[in-house]
Amino acid sequence: MKTLIRDVTVITANERNQVLEHADVVIDGTEITYVGPTTTWDENFQQTINGVGKLLAPGFVNAHGHAAMTLLRSYADDVPLMYWLEKKIYPVEARLKREDVYWGTMLAIAEMIKGGTTTFVDMYFFMDQVAEAAEEAGIRAVLSRGLVGVGPEADSGLEESKEFCRYWHGRAEGRITTMLGPHAPYTCPPDYLQKVMTLQDELGVPVHIHLSETLDEVEQIKAEYGVTPTKLLQKTGLLKRPVLAAHCVHLTEEDMDILAEEDVRVAHNPGSNLKLGSGIAPVPDLLKRGVTVGLGTDGAASNNNLDMLEEMRLAALLHKGSRMDPTLISASEAIAMATRESAKAAFLDNVGVVASGMKADLILIKLKQPHLVPQHDLMAHLVYAAQPSDIQMVMVDGKILCQDGKLTTLDEENIIEQAQQRAINLVQADENE
Amino acid sequence: MKTLIRDVTVITANERNQVLEHADVVIDGTEITYVGPTTTWDENFQQTINGVGKLLAPGFVNAHGHAAMTLLRSYADDVPLMYWLEKKIYPVEARLKREDVYWGTMLAIAEMIKGGTTTFVDMYFFMDQVAEAAEEAGIRAVLSRGLVGVGPEADSGLEESKEFCRYWHGRAEGRITTMLGPHAPYTCPPDYLQKVMTLQDELGVPVHIHLSETLDEVEQIKAEYGVTPTKLLQKTGLLKRPVLAAHCVHLTEEDMDILAEEDVRVAHNPGSNLKLGSGIAPVPDLLKRGVTVGLGTDGAASNNNLDMLEEMRLAALLHKGSRMDPTLISASEAIAMATRESAKAAFLDNVGVVASGMKADLILIKLKQPHLVPQHDLMAHLVYAAQPSDIQMVMVDGKILCQDGKLTTLDEENIIEQAQQRAINLVQADENE
Repeated sequence: MKTLIRDVTVITANERNQVLEHADVVIDGTEITYVGPTTTWDENFQQTINGVGKLLAPGFVNAHGHAAMTLLRSYADDVPLMYWLEKKIYPVEARLKREDVYWGTMLAIAEMIKGGTTTFVDMYFFMDQVAEAAEEAGIRAVLSRGLVGVGPEADSGLEESKEFCRYWHGRAEGRITTMLGPHAPYTCPPDYLQKVMTLQDELGVPVHIHLSETLDEVEQIKAEYGVTPTKLLQKTGLLKRPVLAAHCVHLTEEDMDILAEEDVRVAHNPGSNLKLGSGIAPVPDLLKRGVTVGLGTDGAASNNNLDMLEEMRLAALLHKGSRMDPTLISASEAIAMATRESAKAAFLDNVGVVASGMKADLILIKLKQPHLVPQHDLMAHLVYAAQPSDIQMVMVDGKILCQDGKLTTLDEENIIEQAQQRAINLVQADENE
Repeated sequence: MKTLIRDVTVITANERNQVLEHADVVIDGTEITYVGPTTTWDENFQQTINGVGKLLAPGFVNAHGHAAMTLLRSYADDVPLMYWLEKKIYPVEARLKREDVYWGTMLAIAEMIKGGTTTFVDMYFFMDQVAEAAEEAGIRAVLSRGLVGVGPEADSGLEESKEFCRYWHGRAEGRITTMLGPHAPYTCPPDYLQKVMTLQDELGVPVHIHLSETLDEVEQIKAEYGVTPTKLLQKTGLLKRPVLAAHCVHLTEEDMDILAEEDVRVAHNPGSNLKLGSGIAPVPDLLKRGVTVGLGTDGAASNNNLDMLEEMRLAALLHKGSRMDPTLISASEAIAMATRESAKAAFLDNVGVVASGMKADLILIKLKQPHLVPQHDLMAHLVYAAQPSDIQMVMVDGKILCQDGKLTTLDEENIIEQAQQRAINLVQADENE
């Protein structure tokens, strides 16, 4: 199948942050094969999309999340963190069944596709169900089974992870890749991280971990080990592996130097960090050091949406305001974070940029709307003014997954019903306890 | 005309933040005449709206902005504040003609209505055109002619304001009210504020002013007068009048006590304050003192949208994150800020709450969508997850202004064309200079 998108404005998100006007984009099968000036084509395309008055951009890569937590969206808000976790989230999570995770993930995928996300990076449990949901939906996914190094599931989790990575890595026509998911330094002691590293040596997949999300966990690690969580991970040798570290809110200057030296990839989650009162990550300082910083939504229980447009906007606004410097994190930097840099953070080298040879993971945005007029600067529009409903078409691997707000691979109505009913049951059980 | 909205969930935004399930709402002419349990109605309604699976809330009151600045949306972003103002914004504003302000305001109104805003508070120039646009559109507006106390327009501006207030206050079936708009302490010296106060004594309308938006202006006032801008306004006697103060980012403890004592109404503009690098207003401290804090978008040149859902979300997220306390500004407080408290800030006592006797300024939100499932908490959904496109119906004074994303009183296509063309002309003239 060959598709031509004609005479469109392209936000390439390439290293030069190029915007191309009056461009044609050709997609052959799953790949982009041409991005360049509008021209006359001799060949026939099976599908031609008129790009006039529209904006083409790479689909978003959601670099950190827990998809199935959509079931807990709006279950507990505006409460202290420990109460939120221990009284609300953990008790319900303990009751989640395989099917709950499947439907919660499906709900997340439906929302993500509609909002222009074409790849999501996930850490949760019952990951087979997550992978199945991603495969069915046609979305790209980078999946890890969350590992906690204490308690009954410490070793069985490693075993499960091994099977999961072996089975799923590269499946769904290559759309699914895997990672190992040691949850965090404060839940995975150094001796457990050694086991993770041994498994990593065997499998070769990257590592996905939470790092320095809250001040409390940093203090806890410092009290126990005398060093910061980043330094602790360096000492264990973990940072010599390919690592995606989520959050990185509380870092010392030395921590940031370490992350830069070791080429650790960071997932910035501004919405969740704000909502949980975790703080504001030092993203401008990380970028200054050349650290790869992608963007993620985190789970819907702490966000409460999976809207990467909003996450981009927050990334662009938050650091300007909190540091009182309007030049920090420009629109083009925020776009790069949500696309190209998030892809790098997820160790994917074939998505995140609109260029020949890349996978055709694309979004098309309609511009003729009051909030996107006038069009002095389209990158600023994408970051500061665009809404999910502006996204007219979402494509993964050359296949259209959403057109005019309608999902093509999923039964939205059924997903909504299943998720709603399961969420109510989970919460009622909680209240009956 | 009598309308029944049947069996709907109502976010009342009243003082008790009540949410009513299975409620009926009756609108007679421009007013709400019943809000209560679903019941059997003997009478015939000219219009019945099925509210099942939907959420009814007060329309948003955008407590501070400069509507016509939509023409400068995305014209200059991510640049230092003084460069933005002096090299980009002021030169283009100096060339704005009456018709530009009319079409820029129309564009803003189109965006605001679609996003659920039913009242906007505006300070700009060529205010007759702004008022005409508001009257034609059917939206509610609280309008002030911006006054600068130095330069050639200082006295003529007062004269214009007087005429404007006299002509427009209470027009458009009462939908338009007026204010006096001395721009800010640093542009309106005390002797000029005296003239404003004399005029205020005559007209009785409230005063709309920018206050302590940036650190620079605070320093400037302190250097010149030896006191903070708030203290300066108190000394002039201005704060004894009904005052709406926009921004209030940089306040001392004493300033906040003064705002509370004098019952000054504050418009919080988190998006604009972040984007321009102005800082983060001490909203939790103002609320603790009982100050009325509403929410505004400011102009689209510094936001870059007029989306009150986003402003609500920012208000709820920002203070949690920057102060590392997830209990600050709950969803219900953020909703109150965008509705009831914004109405108070605009000195309107007949909108902002869904209650019998209030004007029928309402929005209806469709809930059956992936990002609003499951429905554990609908107030949290409105603040943390809802999108402008979720708003199915927008009503002002009992008249539907937007249904299923279509504006009923405005020609959206023509507004977009006019605004786009005028914006391009304005900017090209700038580049040719």
